[in-house]
Amino acid sequence: MNELTSLRELVGEIRDLNTTQGLLGWDLEVNMPEKGSDIRAKQMATLSKIAHEMMISDNVGTLLQKLREEATYKSLDKVDQALVREVGKDYDRAKKIPVSLVQEMQEATAKAHLLWVEARKNNDFGRFAPILEKIVQLNQQMAEALGYDKANGSPYDALLDLYEPELTVQQLDVLFANLKKDLVPLVKAIQESHYTPDASFLRKGASIEKQWQFSEAVIQDMGFDFNAGRLDKAPHPFCMGMGAGDVRLTTRLFEDDMVSSLFSSMHEAGHGMYEQGLDPALQRTPLADGASLGIHESQSRMWENLVGRSRPFWTYYFPKLKEYFPQQLEGVSVEDFYKAINRSQPSLIRVESDEATYNLHILLRYEIEKDVIEGKLQVKDLPKVWNQKMQDYFGITPKTDTEGVLQDIHWSHGSFGYFPTYTLGNMYSVQFFNRAKKEVPDLEAQLAKGNLKPLKDWLNAKIHKVGKVETPAEIVQRVTGEPLKAQYFVEYLWEKYSTVYPIQRQALQSASAH
Amino acid sequence: MNELTSLRELVGEIRDLNTTQGLLGWDLEVNMPEKGSDIRAKQMATLSKIAHEMMISDNVGTLLQKLREEATYKSLDKVDQALVREVGKDYDRAKKIPVSLVQEMQEATAKAHLLWVEARKNNDFGRFAPILEKIVQLNQQMAEALGYDKANGSPYDALLDLYEPELTVQQLDVLFANLKKDLVPLVKAIQESHYTPDASFLRKGASIEKQWQFSEAVIQDMGFDFNAGRLDKAPHPFCMGMGAGDVRLTTRLFEDDMVSSLFSSMHEAGHGMYEQGLDPALQRTPLADGASLGIHESQSRMWENLVGRSRPFWTYYFPKLKEYFPQQLEGVSVEDFYKAINRSQPSLIRVESDEATYNLHILLRYEIEKDVIEGKLQVKDLPKVWNQKMQDYFGITPKTDTEGVLQDIHWSHGSFGYFPTYTLGNMYSVQFFNRAKKEVPDLEAQLAKGNLKPLKDWLNAKIHKVGKVETPAEIVQRVTGEPLKAQYFVEYLWEKYSTVYPIQRQALQSASAH
Repeated sequence: MNELTSLRELVGEIRDLNTTQGLLGWDLEVNMPEKGSDIRAKQMATLSKIAHEMMISDNVGTLLQKLREEATYKSLDKVDQALVREVGKDYDRAKKIPVSLVQEMQEATAKAHLLWVEARKNNDFGRFAPILEKIVQLNQQMAEALGYDKANGSPYDALLDLYEPELTVQQLDVLFANLKKDLVPLVKAIQESHYTPDASFLRKGASIEKQWQFSEAVIQDMGFDFNAGRLDKAPHPFCMGMGAGDVRLTTRLFEDDMVSSLFSSMHEAGHGMYEQGLDPALQRTPLADGASLGIHESQSRMWENLVGRSRPFWTYYFPKLKEYFPQQLEGVSVEDFYKAINRSQPSLIRVESDEATYNLHILLRYEIEKDVIEGKLQVKDLPKVWNQKMQDYFGITPKTDTEGVLQDIHWSHGSFGYFPTYTLGNMYSVQFFNRAKKEVPDLEAQLAKGNLKPLKDWLNAKIHKVGKVETPAEIVQRVTGEPLKAQYFVEYLWEKYSTVYPIQRQALQSASAH
Repeated sequence: MNELTSLRELVGEIRDLNTTQGLLGWDLEVNMPEKGSDIRAKQMATLSKIAHEMMISDNVGTLLQKLREEATYKSLDKVDQALVREVGKDYDRAKKIPVSLVQEMQEATAKAHLLWVEARKNNDFGRFAPILEKIVQLNQQMAEALGYDKANGSPYDALLDLYEPELTVQQLDVLFANLKKDLVPLVKAIQESHYTPDASFLRKGASIEKQWQFSEAVIQDMGFDFNAGRLDKAPHPFCMGMGAGDVRLTTRLFEDDMVSSLFSSMHEAGHGMYEQGLDPALQRTPLADGASLGIHESQSRMWENLVGRSRPFWTYYFPKLKEYFPQQLEGVSVEDFYKAINRSQPSLIRVESDEATYNLHILLRYEIEKDVIEGKLQVKDLPKVWNQKMQDYFGITPKTDTEGVLQDIHWSHGSFGYFPTYTLGNMYSVQFFNRAKKEVPDLEAQLAKGNLKPLKDWLNAKIHKVGKVETPAEIVQRVTGEPLKAQYFVEYLWEKYSTVYPIQRQALQSASAH
C-alpha cells in the first residue's frame, strides 16, 4: 500500500532525528566538554523543532486520514495497525498541544531546574514553590488539551497516558490500594523485628576498576550484546537506545560501595536488553520502543532485584565476587552477603530505599501529584502533606524539605504522572518472573549455575520482540494469562523478607488481630 | 535588517544539523558499536537530506536575492558581507549540482571504497579502474555544473575551489613549479649524502599509556583547551569541531613508535586550536570554519613540524621525554634525537614520508589528477605514469600498484582537488611562522623554555579569529604582507636539512652547474 510506504518513510526520518537526539543527550552526559553546552542546547532545540514540524506536517496528516479509515485500517496486519495507531497518537498529541504551551513548559522547566537546585541547597521550599505552581498549571492545561473522560476520569489520566498508555487513575487507585494494605505492615514488621544484618563489609573500600570489571562480566553473562552496545561512566545511570544495534548504558561507581554500581549496571542492562531485543523489522518506527515506561522498568527491576538480589544468583556469583575482593569479603558467607544486600529500613530518600520501602515512596508521590493536578491540594501545602504521609507510612518525619519534598528532580522537569511507572515496573516484574519460573525449565537452578541466558531468551521472545505493537495491558494478559495484580508483588516481598528478617506475614497479621 | 536576521536563523539551524552530523561521524569512529552502522548510515543520510532541502529552500533563495542586491550588500559590514558571500556560495553550489549527480556520486563512492580495498589487497589496479573512471567522469560533470573559466581556466579549477576557495590551476602551477625546482635537488642531495641518523631508540617499545600522557601534556601546553575539547583514540587521527566550545581530536598509538602519536596529536591539536580560536560571534554560521583546507593545514603542520620537529621545542621537551622513557633514551643526546625525528629518505608511501619528500608525493598526485580531470590522461594509464614520476622525483619505482597508485583513499572518496591543500598548508605554515618570528618577541627562545602560548596567542589573533570572513589570499596578504610564495618553504627545508645532513644548497647548485 502506497500510503503505508510513504508513512514509513516519513516516520523513518523523524525517528532518525529522534535517535540522533538520543545520541546528543548521551554524549552530553558522557563526553561533552563543559564549554560545549551552548551549542548542544541549540542542536537539540533545532532537531526537536524540525522533528515536530515534520510530525504535524500535512503529509503525515493526509496519510493518516486515509490509513485510519475503517476499511483501510481493518485490511492492515497487526504491526501496521499498531504503526498507524502509534503514529496517530503522536500526531494527535503534537496537534493538540499548542506550540505556545510547549514553549511555556520549556521556559518554566529551564528556570525550575535552577530554582530547584537552589531551593534544595538552601532548604527553602518557598524559593521553588512559585515555579512549581506554574508547572502544575501548565500540566493542568496540558491535560485539558490532551483530553480525558470528564464524567468519570481525572485530568491526571491524560498525563499518566504519556508514560503508561491507557492506564487510568481508576485502575491505579485499586492497584496501589492493594499494595499499600500489605506494604505498610511489612515495613512496620521489619522495623519492629529490631534486627539489622551486618553490611559493613560492603563499605570497606573496593577498587573502582575491579568493580567495573565485575559489572561488565555480569552484564555480559546476562546477554547484553557489546557488539550492539556500550557501558560508560556518567554522573547518572541511564540507558539510551538508538535501535537494536546501538544501545548505550551508563553507570557510576563508588569506592565505598562495592555493589551499588553492579546493581545499577544490571538495572540499565535490563533496559538495554529490551532495546536490543526489539524486532529489527520495527526499526525506525515508533514501534521500536518499550510498550511503556512501566514495562521497560519491569525489565530493569527484574534483573536488578529478582535476579541480582536473589539467592540463586549469588550462589554462583558470590565466589566470583570473592575472587575480586578477597580481603573485603574474608569470612563473609553467601548468606551474610545476601542479607547485607537485602537490608531494609525506613529512609527519607527514595533513591536510597530498598525493595520493601521503595514503593511506599512512590505511593506517597502518586497520591500527592494526583491531588495537585486535580486541584485538591495546593503547592504551598506540599511540605506539610509530604511530612504527614512520611510519618504515616514509615513512622519518620524529614527534618528538612531538602530531605523531604525537595528531594526529586522530576517535578522540576515538568513530569507529573511519571512516578507510578516505577512501582508498576516492580509489579510487572514479579508477575512476569513468576510466569518465567513456570515456563523456563529449572530457571532458578540455571541462575544458580550462572546460566542467565534462558531467562534472557524467554524475555526476548515474550516481551522484547513485540516492542510497542501491543499495549502494556495486552502484553501482561498474553504473557501471564491475567491482568496486572498487586498480590504477586506483595507475596514476593513478604516471602523474601521473611527469610532475611525474623518476621512472618500471617503471624504478624494474627498478632495484630489480638 | 530583517533579512539578515532571518538568514542567520535559517543558516543557524542548517549549521546545527551540520555540526550534529559531525558528532555522528566522530562517534562512529570513536564509540559506535559495530552493529550500529546501519542506523548510523540512515541518521547521517536523513540529516544531510534535511540540511540540503533547507539550504535550497525558497526561504534562503529569497533572502539571498535581496541581500545580494548591490545597494544592500554594500551597506553591510565586513562580517555580514562575508556571511552573504559564503551562504550564497553554498546556496549556488547546492542549486547548481543536480540531485541526480549527488546520488550517482554517493553510489559510486560507496562501491569504490570496497573495490579500492580489494584492489589494494590483491595488487589489482584493474579491479579499481572501472569505478575510478566513473568517479572521474562524475567529477568532470561536477566541474561543468559548477562552472569555470572556459577561455583560460581548467575544469580542475572548479574542483580545487571546493577545498581551496579562489585558487586556480594557473596560480598553483607556478607555486608548485617553484617548489619542484628546489625539492628534487634537495631530496637527491640528502640521498647522495649517504648519511643516515640513528633512530633505533624510537623503536625500542614505549608504553602506550605513557605516550598518551606525554601527548596530552604537550597539547595542553600548546594551549588546546580541554574544557572545550577532548582527545580520544580512533583508527585514524582527525579533528572534528562543532563550534569553538566543543572540538574533538583523535590519535592512534603504536608501542613500537615512541613519538608518532605525539606528532599526530600536535597536528590535530593545531587544527583544534584553530576551531577553538574562532570568534564566538561567528558560531552557527558558515563563517565559523577555517578559511580553507590549506589554511587549516597550515596550523596543524606548523605545530607538528615547525614547532614539534624543531630544536627549540626539544631543548625543553627532550629532558621531559627522558623522564617518561629513561631506558629507551639512555645515552641519547637531544641532538641525536633531533636528527632521528628528522630523518629523510625517499619512500614509496606518502603517509610514511618526511618534510623533505612529502611534497613531491603531492606534486605527483596534483599533476596526475589535473591531467585526468582535463582529459589528458586516461585512468588505465595511471600506474605507468605514477611509476614514471616516482622514478623521476625520487629515483625509486614501486614494485606493486598497492605501494603505488593504489595507496591513497582520496580518489575512492570521490575527492579530486584535495591533495594540493596538504602542500599549500606546508607553504602557508612557513610563511606565517616567519612572520611570527618577527612579531612575537623571542619566539624561538620562548619555545626553548616550553612557553608555547605566545605563538598560540599570535595565531589566535592573526588567523583563527576571522574564520572564513576573509579568503585565504586575503589572510596571507594581511598577515605576511605578500601573497603566498614557494620560496620561504624551500628555504626552510634547505636550511633545516643542512643541519641534519652534510649537504649545502649553494654547494650543490654550483656543483651541478659545473
